[in-house]
Amino acid sequence: MSPTTTEDSTSSNHGYAKTSLNTVNRYRGRGQYEYQHVYPIIDEAPILHVAFHGSPDQDDFAFPVILPMLGCTGNFEEDPNNDGRRSIYLHGYVSSRIMRLSRKNPASNNIAGAEGIPVCVSATLMDGIVLALTPNHHSCNYRSAVAFGYAQVVEDEPERLYAMELITNNLVPERWQHTRYPNKTELKSTGILRIDIHSASAKVRAGTTGEAREDLKDETMRTKVWAGVVPSRMVYGTPLPAPTNMFPGMPEYIEDWVEEWNEKAERYSAEAAGL
Amino acid sequence: MSPTTTEDSTSSNHGYAKTSLNTVNRYRGRGQYEYQHVYPIIDEAPILHVAFHGSPDQDDFAFPVILPMLGCTGNFEEDPNNDGRRSIYLHGYVSSRIMRLSRKNPASNNIAGAEGIPVCVSATLMDGIVLALTPNHHSCNYRSAVAFGYAQVVEDEPERLYAMELITNNLVPERWQHTRYPNKTELKSTGILRIDIHSASAKVRAGTTGEAREDLKDETMRTKVWAGVVPSRMVYGTPLPAPTNMFPGMPEYIEDWVEEWNEKAERYSAEAAGL
Repeated sequence: MSPTTTEDSTSSNHGYAKTSLNTVNRYRGRGQYEYQHVYPIIDEAPILHVAFHGSPDQDDFAFPVILPMLGCTGNFEEDPNNDGRRSIYLHGYVSSRIMRLSRKNPASNNIAGAEGIPVCVSATLMDGIVLALTPNHHSCNYRSAVAFGYAQVVEDEPERLYAMELITNNLVPERWQHTRYPNKTELKSTGILRIDIHSASAKVRAGTTGEAREDLKDETMRTKVWAGVVPSRMVYGTPLPAPTNMFPGMPEYIEDWVEEWNEKAERYSAEAAGL
Repeated sequence: MSPTTTEDSTSSNHGYAKTSLNTVNRYRGRGQYEYQHVYPIIDEAPILHVAFHGSPDQDDFAFPVILPMLGCTGNFEEDPNNDGRRSIYLHGYVSSRIMRLSRKNPASNNIAGAEGIPVCVSATLMDGIVLALTPNHHSCNYRSAVAFGYAQVVEDEPERLYAMELITNNLVPERWQHTRYPNKTELKSTGILRIDIHSASAKVRAGTTGEAREDLKDETMRTKVWAGVVPSRMVYGTPLPAPTNMFPGMPEYIEDWVEEWNEKAERYSAEAAGL
């Protein structure tokens, strides 16, 4: 799993090599390939969309399948030679289709003998709607990451526990240590997938409208069409205790997280709109 | 495109037939198959994730590819016998990979002679994080739709215009009629894909925590772990005019849309948390 133990020529210098698979062709300037640009987008997106090929034993094999899943990047085997490369951990129900496929096809369809089923993971943060004078110049501000890799079911218990804690705390910081520790049956019912990333890239758009030169000469039209950016962001609302909750008041780690998330999201989307 | 002109046995009674492709297996009660439950999720999601198979002429054919795209459901050919079935329209750059593939493979890989390349469209709205007493009972409130179908490039000019207006106004209501009408070059540079849906379903989770019975007996533990729902929603911020904007003030249709969207999103996520 660590970059020094797998033969992989696609990574170098703390980033992914540009290949036909991951290169951003449209608006090349928006493409980013460094780990430090790709991973934070995957970690910040609350939902990851994961695509895999349909199962050959089913009627409708022709279609790819997308599952929305929870997950984040991680690196279980800390390696002194690690150049910062990480895997993606996902969790889901242990007998779900993607888990069954990953178990059944430990080494199918893949490149360079890597294990697991080929998947694509997409993380998208939408930061605003860019309204230009004409609809064909409309755009969005966004941060998007896409990763291609091989998904395997993790069987090693320490790595499974590492991933469960990682995914829980990636969504709600410090949550794991403030809950009742799962029992054996509960741990068994949770499947963990690790995706060893073969290739990845990010694409980011920030800034105000881009207009056609001709349009800027047409002042009559410009007084009639509003042009600008409507920032957008995901926010968390006031936490609502369950009817069965007995904890008095609200824990600080949840209050702080909601407040910090909301402030950061508002600031980022407003700044992106003003660039 | 209309349901009466294509031979398709998979739809009936204003909904999609349950097959191995679209049936929700985990938490069956959350599955929905009626058009009226599937389409609004696709239309409300600002970003759709679209998966297709990699191109055989590229190195890394093994991987499915996900693109985040803008789009919504629509029905160009109104048919008196229409049972409410719709297609999905997506727009993108005319020479992007998915457009090229859809053009090159008008009838590949598909079922029952339908045209286009097989794709999966996923729409996910996240409504909250459900924090139970133990992490393995954590969950999310969400509305998710997945549709499988065949994507074709639309060449018919009236249908292309219909789709461009539809997609623009689905994102920002009434925007199309308040902008400068696109010229011929601009229209040509925008590609429109139509996905004729073969199968689809929705999955919805709303409500408070679900706890293990044993946990509810442990009052000491319950006073130590906060349990409840943190609602989440996408909101739009204060629109920021472009430096080149000459429209005086803010148009009412934008102000109204932002206000209504934000109110509706807050109400839905709070209600879902309290169920």
